[in-house]
Amino acid sequence: MSFELHPQLEKDLISLGKLDLCQAFLLPDSDNPWVVLVPEIPNIREVHELSKDDQYKLMDEISLISKKMESKFSPDKLNVAALGNMVPQLHIHIICRYKGDKSWPGSLFGSVPGEDKKKIESYKEELQLQN
Amino acid sequence: MSFELHPQLEKDLISLGKLDLCQAFLLPDSDNPWVVLVPEIPNIREVHELSKDDQYKLMDEISLISKKMESKFSPDKLNVAALGNMVPQLHIHIICRYKGDKSWPGSLFGSVPGEDKKKIESYKEELQLQN
Repeated sequence: MSFELHPQLEKDLISLGKLDLCQAFLLPDSDNPWVVLVPEIPNIREVHELSKDDQYKLMDEISLISKKMESKFSPDKLNVAALGNMVPQLHIHIICRYKGDKSWPGSLFGSVPGEDKKKIESYKEELQLQN
Repeated sequence: MSFELHPQLEKDLISLGKLDLCQAFLLPDSDNPWVVLVPEIPNIREVHELSKDDQYKLMDEISLISKKMESKFSPDKLNVAALGNMVPQLHIHIICRYKGDKSWPGSLFGSVPGEDKKKIESYKEELQLQN
């Protein structure tokens, strides 16, 4: 069975390109740079359902994107999370957090995204993968 | 420099024992079985600051605990997250979520924990590590 991106993710996210295991996306929120990684493996809901090799690849790709976001956007903290209560297809959030941002120190899940299109476009340019 | 558990985690959490990399704890919330893993490495705030070997060990231990929680507590979904906005020492939450639980489908971070001590004790017994 081949991988298909969940329609809700397809609708909500902006593609940044492909890594070895995951498709990378920007979640459009101008207040906080916010990446979502989706492993291209069909029918996976939880991290531990991936093969051991793919779990390690996922860890490599989370680290790669985390370092990139840290160097581009100088967050005070990164938030990394696999929740999936609304969209069951496994996807991992990596979010730049800043002291005093709209939900600090709470979580950003469920917050209203900032809509500054120029800023979102600038995040996309900074994070676009070369492939 | 040796590892010391952050005083806030020491205060909030109940020890379950030690894995190879992490100390495992129960966060006392009778509504949702909730484990916290803390890698015993000093001065680490983000997952990607761990060595590559330790990142893989962390992934192994997240999977191990996730599978254990799934088999013991039959959640509808697991939530796995490294946030650390309040306590900067790297710690990973692994939480059993149920359709219709107090925050479903939102995140549980910031929610008020259930206080049924017998239930919390039963989670502890189910999750206690043998070492």
